[in-house]
Amino acid sequence: MDCIFCKIIRGEIPSAKLYEDENTLAILDINPIAVGHALIISKEHYPAFLETPPETMAKLMKTSYKIIDAVVKGTGAEGYNLLINNNRCAGQVIPHLHIHVIPRKKGDGLRFEWIPRPYREGEMDKTAKAIKESYS
Amino acid sequence: MDCIFCKIIRGEIPSAKLYEDENTLAILDINPIAVGHALIISKEHYPAFLETPPETMAKLMKTSYKIIDAVVKGTGAEGYNLLINNNRCAGQVIPHLHIHVIPRKKGDGLRFEWIPRPYREGEMDKTAKAIKESYS
Repeated sequence: MDCIFCKIIRGEIPSAKLYEDENTLAILDINPIAVGHALIISKEHYPAFLETPPETMAKLMKTSYKIIDAVVKGTGAEGYNLLINNNRCAGQVIPHLHIHVIPRKKGDGLRFEWIPRPYREGEMDKTAKAIKESYS
Repeated sequence: MDCIFCKIIRGEIPSAKLYEDENTLAILDINPIAVGHALIISKEHYPAFLETPPETMAKLMKTSYKIIDAVVKGTGAEGYNLLINNNRCAGQVIPHLHIHVIPRKKGDGLRFEWIPRPYREGEMDKTAKAIKESYS
């Protein structure tokens, strides 16, 4: 498959590997937004969260505890963002599920554009209703 | 405890509830950055990811599949961000672990400030080494 992460997993493209086991891989992001910005990746190819089987997600979570703890300690971070972008419109560049671990420090200048957009009157209830009617 | 989410869980503060079971709660964020911006919350109070027991995280993941799918369908989203901010310096406002589900559409104007900061020569290897030496 022509997926960059699949190629990294197969060793066809080099990476700064942090950890590897049978099911998961952790590497440094080659385009980091912070020093120590890491990616936790499933070895099996799934596009995004909803397509990833719960058993695979459980393995990713297990690796996440190990990696996040080490990223925080290894970089002296005071906090961290965990981010999964799903689909292109959400900023996902490589369509192979990956968890971003972004170590943070006070005053690091990094910020997410976080502009609250208040609901109009009645819109919040309407939205909650539409979501609740969508349960599979 | 004087935690807003604990108060919501106990029913002392109203919320737009999407889902509730024995261990988890899903609500609409009252300061949404997108229509349908939801929060998935553990009923037990843990400050952030690393303090949350893996068993609790597994329950949050189970609820996440249900909620994310319904948020996507209920809002007609084309993608979604999943975000956990951990500690104040990472933008965490309420120190009770919660997963942000942010539905996205092409051209929605929402973006995270995502400015790559390339490693200086040798810095990537040094960073990977520091992280790998920090495994517990």
